[in-house]
Amino acid sequence: MSSATQGPTLSPFIVFDALNAYQRTAALRAGIDLDLFTAIGEGNSSVPAIARRVGASEKGTRILCDFLGIIGLLKKDGAAYSLTPDSAMFLDRRSPACFADAAQFLGSIRPMFDSLTEAVRQGGTTLEGQGSVEDNNPLWIEFAQSMAPLMALPAEMIAQQLGAAQAGAWKVLDIAAGHGLFGIALARHNSQAHIVALDWDAVLDVARANARKAGVDARYSTKPGSAFDIDFGTGYDIVLLTNFLHHFDPPTCEGLLRKVHASLANGGRVVTLEFIPNDDRVTPPTDAMFPLIMLATTRSGDAYTFAELDSMFHNAGFSRSELRELTPLPQRIVVSYK
Amino acid sequence: MSSATQGPTLSPFIVFDALNAYQRTAALRAGIDLDLFTAIGEGNSSVPAIARRVGASEKGTRILCDFLGIIGLLKKDGAAYSLTPDSAMFLDRRSPACFADAAQFLGSIRPMFDSLTEAVRQGGTTLEGQGSVEDNNPLWIEFAQSMAPLMALPAEMIAQQLGAAQAGAWKVLDIAAGHGLFGIALARHNSQAHIVALDWDAVLDVARANARKAGVDARYSTKPGSAFDIDFGTGYDIVLLTNFLHHFDPPTCEGLLRKVHASLANGGRVVTLEFIPNDDRVTPPTDAMFPLIMLATTRSGDAYTFAELDSMFHNAGFSRSELRELTPLPQRIVVSYK
Repeated sequence: MSSATQGPTLSPFIVFDALNAYQRTAALRAGIDLDLFTAIGEGNSSVPAIARRVGASEKGTRILCDFLGIIGLLKKDGAAYSLTPDSAMFLDRRSPACFADAAQFLGSIRPMFDSLTEAVRQGGTTLEGQGSVEDNNPLWIEFAQSMAPLMALPAEMIAQQLGAAQAGAWKVLDIAAGHGLFGIALARHNSQAHIVALDWDAVLDVARANARKAGVDARYSTKPGSAFDIDFGTGYDIVLLTNFLHHFDPPTCEGLLRKVHASLANGGRVVTLEFIPNDDRVTPPTDAMFPLIMLATTRSGDAYTFAELDSMFHNAGFSRSELRELTPLPQRIVVSYK
Repeated sequence: MSSATQGPTLSPFIVFDALNAYQRTAALRAGIDLDLFTAIGEGNSSVPAIARRVGASEKGTRILCDFLGIIGLLKKDGAAYSLTPDSAMFLDRRSPACFADAAQFLGSIRPMFDSLTEAVRQGGTTLEGQGSVEDNNPLWIEFAQSMAPLMALPAEMIAQQLGAAQAGAWKVLDIAAGHGLFGIALARHNSQAHIVALDWDAVLDVARANARKAGVDARYSTKPGSAFDIDFGTGYDIVLLTNFLHHFDPPTCEGLLRKVHASLANGGRVVTLEFIPNDDRVTPPTDAMFPLIMLATTRSGDAYTFAELDSMFHNAGFSRSELRELTPLPQRIVVSYK
């Protein structure tokens, strides 16, 4: 170490910050459990008023609110707490974009990180029957239910990027549809589109309910089962592959992409939504941190760079692939042409 | 919300960052478990070399190293990883200031945060027999063993601040001595000082061993038991009250401080080491985040502002108290005069 980096500039802060980082998750989860953000959004701004509204002690409420203030999820002016623009949008249950329930889903994978050391040793989770892509894992019903509010914006952006509103009578395959929002957005933008949604049958219940709510159920059909086993059919103009490839290793991805290629009409496109790290694998942070989740929760998943995805699509027969941003979202899309 | 704060500047990033923050803790703990920081400090810089040295898969090693790079605990240049000044000092086991073992202690309180919502409701932990200040809680043996490397610096700084080297034959009481390092530092600086260390007997084993190692055991005696029950004796020049008051409510603290006041010689001083938030209770961040740990792990603990501590000392009979910084450390000390 050079002398320039020694002395008072060194501080254990950054190490402690990581050792204690789990407390941020616990504080946010407690805030969501107590519906603290809605209470504050309704105008309760003092500790006594908030405590009364959420049914908690004043001391606990004060400590929790201060902590959430420090991590940027509340504002504090004098003794008055208020929501930030982010917490008003995403954590107040009166907001249509609220994804407080996503905390449920994200909480359900948390125990798998207790075995992270072993996952690093083995290159993937070793938890018996716990790989998140196990057949009919009930995790995905929870995922479909809780993550939908968060997917409305990327689904809308993808429909716009593809020019769905200006297109003809599309036939769309939505692989691992989950909540179904990506296919449903295409059906909403394109009144002649027909969507075929594929997922485990119990998960498709969620997608079918969302299609009914969106008024597109007459143009919505489903194929229950594993994307690796069932027949896709043919003649699709668009195949949606959203948040799916990261669960698998490259040979498995390529095998699936060959099957997707065969199902496309001439001129058809695949839209892949992913966390896509840059080639340095440490930027942008949200995309580049995602592989750890795959390491901890799947046997062979990862997050792939565009170069890696481009190579998989090329090997599966696609003529070319384009990387596109979904600014301001961290995820990106790859559009690949047959 | 004003229109100026809507639209593309809003991002769920800050909410996700908190929901996923526990992954930072898991990654650092996995790095410590695998002794990854020592491996990299020794000069292993490529994924294959690091993986071989720590006995892990290349894929898992690559994903973990990238994640630790993103959170600032490793540097990455091209494909080569190296330690940061902080991780070299605090996480490489070849460094004398390494506190990798503190992760053990900090890990042992982590499960208590699973009940944080209930602790907010009640104003303290409700876990049966789990309050961290229970009699003879084995937590404190682990604390004394694992946190010592981290306490060497503040112990040294306190000995200097008090002018221990220039003082006469001090009689020092070290309340809740734990590893004993604060009293031992005074004995090292002042060759005529006699230290009386107070803690549970099993914890005092750790303090006595550290006193022997420091060569001050001839001037080191111990009083096993609870600070609230046992007789302190009298005539102390210095009483050390380090990281103790935050476990208790103000009336309990005041009761203890009255007992401390009675044990001091005329002109005697108490040195209180604490996380001391500013009056706004949201700065500085490390001090202001500390109350959440007390909420989750004690029945009635908190972190007190200087105004609150000053008032407790005043009520217990002390003439005045001074707040002093221990820059660059986040903790501060209060020196109170009989």
